[in-house]
Amino acid sequence: MKSVEDFVQAQRKQALEELMELLKIPSVSTDPSRKDDMQRCAQFVLEKLRAAGLEASILDTGGHPAVYGERLDAPGKPTLLVYGHYDVQPPEPLELWRNGPFTPTVEGEYLVARGSTDDKGQSFALVKGIEAAVQVHGRLPINVKVLIEGEEEIGSPHLGPLIRREKRRLACDYVVIADSSQLAKDIPAITYGLKGLVYLEVIVRGAAKDLHSGSYGGAVANPANVLARLIAACQGPYGKVAIPGFYDDVRPLDPQERAEFAKLPFNEAAFREETGAPELVGEEGYTTLERKWARPTFDVNGLVSGFTGEGAKTVLPSVARAKFSMRLVPDQEPEKIAALAREFLQEMAPRGVSIEILDHHGARPVLVPRTGKGVQAAVRAYTRGFGREPVFIREGGSIPVVNTFQAELGAPSLLLGLGLPDDDAHAPNEKFRIPDFYRGISTMAALVEELAK
Amino acid sequence: MKSVEDFVQAQRKQALEELMELLKIPSVSTDPSRKDDMQRCAQFVLEKLRAAGLEASILDTGGHPAVYGERLDAPGKPTLLVYGHYDVQPPEPLELWRNGPFTPTVEGEYLVARGSTDDKGQSFALVKGIEAAVQVHGRLPINVKVLIEGEEEIGSPHLGPLIRREKRRLACDYVVIADSSQLAKDIPAITYGLKGLVYLEVIVRGAAKDLHSGSYGGAVANPANVLARLIAACQGPYGKVAIPGFYDDVRPLDPQERAEFAKLPFNEAAFREETGAPELVGEEGYTTLERKWARPTFDVNGLVSGFTGEGAKTVLPSVARAKFSMRLVPDQEPEKIAALAREFLQEMAPRGVSIEILDHHGARPVLVPRTGKGVQAAVRAYTRGFGREPVFIREGGSIPVVNTFQAELGAPSLLLGLGLPDDDAHAPNEKFRIPDFYRGISTMAALVEELAK
Repeated sequence: MKSVEDFVQAQRKQALEELMELLKIPSVSTDPSRKDDMQRCAQFVLEKLRAAGLEASILDTGGHPAVYGERLDAPGKPTLLVYGHYDVQPPEPLELWRNGPFTPTVEGEYLVARGSTDDKGQSFALVKGIEAAVQVHGRLPINVKVLIEGEEEIGSPHLGPLIRREKRRLACDYVVIADSSQLAKDIPAITYGLKGLVYLEVIVRGAAKDLHSGSYGGAVANPANVLARLIAACQGPYGKVAIPGFYDDVRPLDPQERAEFAKLPFNEAAFREETGAPELVGEEGYTTLERKWARPTFDVNGLVSGFTGEGAKTVLPSVARAKFSMRLVPDQEPEKIAALAREFLQEMAPRGVSIEILDHHGARPVLVPRTGKGVQAAVRAYTRGFGREPVFIREGGSIPVVNTFQAELGAPSLLLGLGLPDDDAHAPNEKFRIPDFYRGISTMAALVEELAK
Repeated sequence: MKSVEDFVQAQRKQALEELMELLKIPSVSTDPSRKDDMQRCAQFVLEKLRAAGLEASILDTGGHPAVYGERLDAPGKPTLLVYGHYDVQPPEPLELWRNGPFTPTVEGEYLVARGSTDDKGQSFALVKGIEAAVQVHGRLPINVKVLIEGEEEIGSPHLGPLIRREKRRLACDYVVIADSSQLAKDIPAITYGLKGLVYLEVIVRGAAKDLHSGSYGGAVANPANVLARLIAACQGPYGKVAIPGFYDDVRPLDPQERAEFAKLPFNEAAFREETGAPELVGEEGYTTLERKWARPTFDVNGLVSGFTGEGAKTVLPSVARAKFSMRLVPDQEPEKIAALAREFLQEMAPRGVSIEILDHHGARPVLVPRTGKGVQAAVRAYTRGFGREPVFIREGGSIPVVNTFQAELGAPSLLLGLGLPDDDAHAPNEKFRIPDFYRGISTMAALVEELAK
């Protein structure tokens, strides 16, 4: 019998071409004008699941569709659920893309396109890994289910209800997700911790229309002035968040974990260089890895008010908006933190303006136990796929569904990062390293075998 | 002999049609793509000065052209210089205009278009007033000069040098400017005080590119977070500006002037209603008129950073920009205030970001003496044109050239406001009351006669 590895080697070129087709579809879930592209993308994924040997169908969610496939070859053996998402972040600012966000381009050993790493490239590697296992084994030694949704980048509003509704169909022992990163190039990693998220938008309104700042300045409240003060008030000294109660439920980092972080081959100078920031700064008393992975943060994601064009316009804006998000760590609860932030902003809002707060999405922080058969199988699969034993890391990003899987299906998640930290997920010229795409396929094919042991 | 008033009455319709033609030209001085429209607009103004009976020509400034005309009929008699500007503010946001910014539309007794009040409509009224006087008198009883520039909305960068270069040609006893407002509908006003201006833009830069706020948040400085803190730091409690030294040169309001303000028929409730703001707020210890006219202010004019579209994007922006302006009162010097602001922002900038500060434009505050033959003639002309004696007011806007005329030509400015406070200058649906356009023509024609007495 041919090994899965030989098969994967032979199929690389075709896998890459298929991924490039997938990346051409502008499946921006937050953009209402992309509804048809979302449908088209789901259809494409459906065909690929079927080509992989799964019995597959589109699941209506009430929002963008999810795609589901399964192959239940091994009664009594473990069942693995692969989760991924086919939707992508908005591509703006468009002018910064070298070849356009939806024109996948090979640049050296990288494939550049929106969604290349997050998460089309990574999740497609898992699908191709299953396909390899099916092709080589005929019958799989475990049961495999695949769920690829279309609303991850907008907070998966319909996924929780779908999982609850399809609890029996989705029942599994482990979930595997490839939507995170290796620690660095050729240092594969299993992610056991994720930050949670609260994403809010505050809208400050003053006058009913934009006014001349000369004729009205000083006499009416300026919403942009107020917004700056509100956002500043959320920030304390020493890199702390100043929203009252924000740290109440933060579990202190345990000394052993801090020691493990310190031993990881993390190149701080390279990390700084990769960001292009003049220096690394953050909450006092913590290392860069601790700040990234295990301390809660407050970040403005967008600001807009008044005149933003070239030159000068002496306008007193009628409205000012800030999108901001807080990354959470155990045991902060997103609902509680959102309520604290809302309360604080309302309390700080001065006379002369009204404020409105929109809730975009949230996620609970996650810590996955590092023991257990699933994690051990993942370590062996990873070692086969990448030729090197993975390290254990945490991640500052959020994958809200991990908690849902735990709560609804009782299944822990195996977070296999195939991407790299400098893949520019969510930014212009997002990329995915092609050798890691191939290794990801091999790892998934190996995982099917390792979980059967 | 026919009176100028009869002549003006007969010519109203034609004057309004000509103004509408002028308003169709998108002469946005700050927009580099409008260079040809600026030339076209100057040419249009040139033709109108010639039609008014002036010997006129285009003056090259090095930037957008100025238009100059003169008629020196009365050696030994006073010389009046009329100043105005044909350039306009950017029209954005375009979607808020009911009929487009450059499609002048009559709505009730108003003419709606960008530049209708600021300053095409007001300055054109003066030109048509001169034309009436010329038509009726044949020879004018005083000497008249007209200078209409094209860079007022970008801070008149080439006007000072032009005035210095053309000092002899522009020599005059008085300057008349119609680029301000009446106190309210049918309460004509002579403006004797203007605020000064410092307009800056601060650009905060962090990482070299936008980053994923999950993977990088907490580890690198967020320029939008920093920007909010910088802008907040400029604002003190009680509506004060907190830039150190900001108030050092502020001349306290004298009690007599405060008493005069208090006696003016200013309708505060109507003013609030006109803004649509939930309430009027400002520096503690001062009335609304004092805040508007005689106390310095700090206003953000524009904010932009990160993701500003619909929905949510978890981006850590690489850059954040704020445009902001400070309105100044005597004896604040714009150069000194700009330096204080720059110094303060640089000092407050935290580690992990670089900041750049752009200087857009500035103007000195102005107080014109209310005695003298020119002002008295203006009061009589205004009374004839509007059928009511004008009140004396101050204004929160800036007309930087007033100081230049005083300094270079030794000539005081007569600020005849033809507009209304709610004309929405600089905002969408800017408008000018058509009866006031006609009254402005009559006032100017009368001023030519009154100055000869």
